[in-house]
Amino acid sequence: MPNLTDHIVKSFDDQLKQLGTILVQMGTMVESQLQQAIEALISHNLKQAAQIVDQDHQIDVLDQNVSQLAVKILALRQPMAQDLREVVSSLKISSDLERMGDYAANVAKRIPALPEIITNKQIISGLSRMGKAVQQIVKNVLDSYINKNTDRALQAWRQDEEVDALYTSIFRELLTYMMEDIRTIGGCIHLLFIAKNIERIGDHATNIAETVYFMVHGSHIQGERPKSDHTISNAYSNPTTKEKLT
Amino acid sequence: MPNLTDHIVKSFDDQLKQLGTILVQMGTMVESQLQQAIEALISHNLKQAAQIVDQDHQIDVLDQNVSQLAVKILALRQPMAQDLREVVSSLKISSDLERMGDYAANVAKRIPALPEIITNKQIISGLSRMGKAVQQIVKNVLDSYINKNTDRALQAWRQDEEVDALYTSIFRELLTYMMEDIRTIGGCIHLLFIAKNIERIGDHATNIAETVYFMVHGSHIQGERPKSDHTISNAYSNPTTKEKLT
Repeated sequence: MPNLTDHIVKSFDDQLKQLGTILVQMGTMVESQLQQAIEALISHNLKQAAQIVDQDHQIDVLDQNVSQLAVKILALRQPMAQDLREVVSSLKISSDLERMGDYAANVAKRIPALPEIITNKQIISGLSRMGKAVQQIVKNVLDSYINKNTDRALQAWRQDEEVDALYTSIFRELLTYMMEDIRTIGGCIHLLFIAKNIERIGDHATNIAETVYFMVHGSHIQGERPKSDHTISNAYSNPTTKEKLT
Repeated sequence: MPNLTDHIVKSFDDQLKQLGTILVQMGTMVESQLQQAIEALISHNLKQAAQIVDQDHQIDVLDQNVSQLAVKILALRQPMAQDLREVVSSLKISSDLERMGDYAANVAKRIPALPEIITNKQIISGLSRMGKAVQQIVKNVLDSYINKNTDRALQAWRQDEEVDALYTSIFRELLTYMMEDIRTIGGCIHLLFIAKNIERIGDHATNIAETVYFMVHGSHIQGERPKSDHTISNAYSNPTTKEKLT
């Protein structure tokens, strides 16, 4: 006959696992939403874009599920030490993933506002490169979360520098196009916000990397994240200082 | 002689109060940072802008204090029902306030990138009006949090519509200026991001209003937040539907 303590412990582990499962499901959906948004952008596929916008709701629902389950675990199980860190971290990760989903949906939302045929292949291929780099980071932080692998988390955290550099170069290119042909200004501004949205998905992914590190070690990553966004003034800060998510 | 139960209860209340005090301190700082950022923008005061960027760190530290205290309360006190909602809500509110601080600092960071004398008084006065409207919302959500007044929270939640409308009109005006004089494109893009940052501070304030409502009632606000940002396609959504924070 199973004893009661075993049962309680097992059930607690089950609940923690369930929390992890929902987070992985959310992460996978965010990855897919981002990938589809890039595809829809390249092919100017308005139907696909509309689907992405619709699907965002599913991520929001999962975020609410995480909150409810986490609060339930806190109330009924009163976890301690690493278990407590894991539950509190899941709230943070879920809220980052929810925002990442919003950004992917915002990319999709802007697609119909772009000129039907985007003739400037160079900008689109730059955005696509940036999207792929961010997808890789998202994949890495998800792996680091699933395997509690902080080396992988640190790797993802550092990869974001490449994304910032790509963003800076897209920003400059768009500025040039707008000046060369004022008829492109409206479209270019939407492309600028699309680039910013993708960059922010990367920023939130590095937040998750930091949370995974904290969840495993109980301490924060030392040092500042390398940063290469030079589109705004660095007068106040060393260029290697992390620009906070804004 | 005080009995032990009283002592424990009092000490728990003290910890909850302390959590509230830190949040109010954060909120007051965010309000002040936003106000200063608008002032620095109007007067092109680079020294003040640099101070705002420096001060943001203090808000980040308070956010970490909230997280640590909340986790401590969860671990040691195992609060139930409304107390538990209050602790979990404080984590959410703190993270919103931290982001609002980031946005205010990002407004300040962009000031040196603007032309020294911003000749276009109309845009600046539009931004200033938007800043004041957002300040009012922030004030209202702070009041609603302090007094657990959900009427005030709902009022703040609805006020954000005005901010979105101001943002839309600034967006359109900036577009016109860029087309009229390509030399203004660089500056106008920074002003566009400044407007977006201020709008986002308002969005996060409405998040806090939602959290206060949930904290008090244990249920979510019914209905969608009214939304008037028409700068991006509404093809997929009714214009009154809330556009998610992006």
